[in-house]
Amino acid sequence: MTLIVEKFGGTSVGSVERINAVADHLVKKFAEGEQLVVVVSAMSGETNRLIKLANDITEKPSAREMDVLVSTGEQVTIALLSMALQEREQAARSYTGGQVSIKTDGVHSRARILEIDAKKIRSDLDKGRIVVVAGFQGIDSSGNITTLGRGGSDTTAVAIAAALKADECRIYTDVDGIYTTDPRVVPQARRLESITAEEMLELSSLGAKVLQTRSVEFAGKYHVPLRVLSSFVDGPGTLITYEEEGSSMEAPLISGIAFQRDEAKLTIRGIPDHPGIAHQVLGPISEAHINVDVIIQNASAKGQTDLTFTVPRDDYESCMEILNGLVTELGARDVKGDDRIAKISIVGVGMRSHTGVANTMFKTLADHDINIQMISTSEIKVSVIIDETHLERAVQTLHKAFDLDSV
Amino acid sequence: MTLIVEKFGGTSVGSVERINAVADHLVKKFAEGEQLVVVVSAMSGETNRLIKLANDITEKPSAREMDVLVSTGEQVTIALLSMALQEREQAARSYTGGQVSIKTDGVHSRARILEIDAKKIRSDLDKGRIVVVAGFQGIDSSGNITTLGRGGSDTTAVAIAAALKADECRIYTDVDGIYTTDPRVVPQARRLESITAEEMLELSSLGAKVLQTRSVEFAGKYHVPLRVLSSFVDGPGTLITYEEEGSSMEAPLISGIAFQRDEAKLTIRGIPDHPGIAHQVLGPISEAHINVDVIIQNASAKGQTDLTFTVPRDDYESCMEILNGLVTELGARDVKGDDRIAKISIVGVGMRSHTGVANTMFKTLADHDINIQMISTSEIKVSVIIDETHLERAVQTLHKAFDLDSV
Repeated sequence: MTLIVEKFGGTSVGSVERINAVADHLVKKFAEGEQLVVVVSAMSGETNRLIKLANDITEKPSAREMDVLVSTGEQVTIALLSMALQEREQAARSYTGGQVSIKTDGVHSRARILEIDAKKIRSDLDKGRIVVVAGFQGIDSSGNITTLGRGGSDTTAVAIAAALKADECRIYTDVDGIYTTDPRVVPQARRLESITAEEMLELSSLGAKVLQTRSVEFAGKYHVPLRVLSSFVDGPGTLITYEEEGSSMEAPLISGIAFQRDEAKLTIRGIPDHPGIAHQVLGPISEAHINVDVIIQNASAKGQTDLTFTVPRDDYESCMEILNGLVTELGARDVKGDDRIAKISIVGVGMRSHTGVANTMFKTLADHDINIQMISTSEIKVSVIIDETHLERAVQTLHKAFDLDSV
Repeated sequence: MTLIVEKFGGTSVGSVERINAVADHLVKKFAEGEQLVVVVSAMSGETNRLIKLANDITEKPSAREMDVLVSTGEQVTIALLSMALQEREQAARSYTGGQVSIKTDGVHSRARILEIDAKKIRSDLDKGRIVVVAGFQGIDSSGNITTLGRGGSDTTAVAIAAALKADECRIYTDVDGIYTTDPRVVPQARRLESITAEEMLELSSLGAKVLQTRSVEFAGKYHVPLRVLSSFVDGPGTLITYEEEGSSMEAPLISGIAFQRDEAKLTIRGIPDHPGIAHQVLGPISEAHINVDVIIQNASAKGQTDLTFTVPRDDYESCMEILNGLVTELGARDVKGDDRIAKISIVGVGMRSHTGVANTMFKTLADHDINIQMISTSEIKVSVIIDETHLERAVQTLHKAFDLDSV
């Protein structure tokens, strides 16, 4: 008998109709011989309704009480889904995070799971029940309700799958899998049968927001087979795999192309070069809670250096202000900026064992007269910054050049 | 330092404005030197919203899942009220029934409290916190969420007051206390400074629905001083006391007059008299889930007997049908009925040590040409059934005759 953990997000359980559809699906899977644990989020809109109530009362709700409040959202869903299963003559039982002993640290609103007691779940599964667990929430060592932060329900599902040593953890979303790139930009984009967790992480953190980085990391740590599927259309989705040593020889050269619009870059030029420059420039940016992405420090000429970095476009103005404030202090020449850039990344574990991947990318872009402004590389990724007007064309060209188009 | 448990129902916390008003009140009480535990219900309307969601999914939701669902209502309120207190710089902490160890039996939707672990509450009180507890809910020995049924939040408040040996348990409602009778019928009706629990129970079960019978019984069992007050206007309310042996000498003759409209009576006449008649007639009524109130079996004449009883008027038709079906089976003569009757009860522990109270009632009614159709008495109560057209006049007359009018 296979043991499966399935997770349904807020949109998938967003109405009575959707909950009934999920119940129908589960009854079918159970009849096919699967033992099932289901992790659900709050019905879409519910968490926002609760947050609004809190904000009507205070501008700075305590994190502890916020967790008490928002955790009711998932509790409503587990009860309703269990009722829907029982209405279909399917034995089922709901559990809150606390009831099924999802022990976390005490960091309210972004707690980390420490351990899960799988005994209760196992005992229910053995009795032929579908077990319905509230995602996103847990309990700390003092019995306080905690929540795991954004995407926490995915993490709950993966953690339960790890604790139960489940055969598979299925994350139902509004897309039917992971694509080689965004099909809205490249109609020939293909759904990947499988992708490695590392590639998934690179694609995910680059903007393909299908799964939360954290749940993929968690799945990787415990080697939980993770599958992304659509809760609206049938299909096999995409399986996330974990690389074995030496297996990357067989991997495709690159798996996908991620891109990000709404980037901006800033350059502070002519800084007298001495140790600690990067820290002196980027420290104030970080203190302003602005995420810096690609960073490049040019080779020093005449004892001077230029530092260029990218930030989300929304933070461009405040970044410019901070840098202008630093010019005199650091004895720099001036600040330049461009808020019309975009980032493209090619991702693939195959890069590790193949040379020339980056070069193919650069040549392809050059052949199409697309100028590269910045380059950043990691072991399984090459990112370039280009003018945003070339974004679509660049992605389409690279998708074809790396043989990702569907046949 | 006095330790007080206060309870606010759904209307008292029915909006952000009401929750803020409760928080203002609590901060004031705390500043006056009271240690405070607050028990709250779900915001008015919330429980019905949740029940509707369940009913949209199934006609027969399981009691266990229903408890998981509706218990979220109070959980929302405890979080919001705690936030409102913290917004006022008042340390506060919320607890669900399960978190503060309100252990109940496993009878979902109408569980009974078995024990409460007061340690956690005490520790918070000692730290200068106001403790906010979800009413109506608890946890059984297996960790399942339970609810206490209608009026359960009152019971939670009383149980916590008992466990903490609180100085007083205050139940905030939409009335400012217990009155000698309904002021809408008798404008001279007075608010009672105090009333015994026994009298309260008789008045409460007779229709003065200020407190749930169960919470008063519970308070009586543990001798918790219970006070009923208004959450909308300031005032001392009514204190519910517990009779000491021999103290009833000082008690007023009668404390209040309760009445019930919408009653009906039925008589099955000429039944051959033999043991078990009452059971044979009332058994089928009880099986139809109809509550029988006053029952009178007339002295037997010629081996025949008449049995008369009252039921809620809504059940009159179905009762009549059941009795007509029994006439042949029992060899009775016929069935008569009257669905235009009302019940009036005078209640007072003073009756125990004073004779003639019932007679004063009968004489007063006779003097005003009000015919008594049935009489029923208990140790601290005399009830009569009269034609409903005389109800208002009878209550006003009795209120005056027993010196209950305000001076």
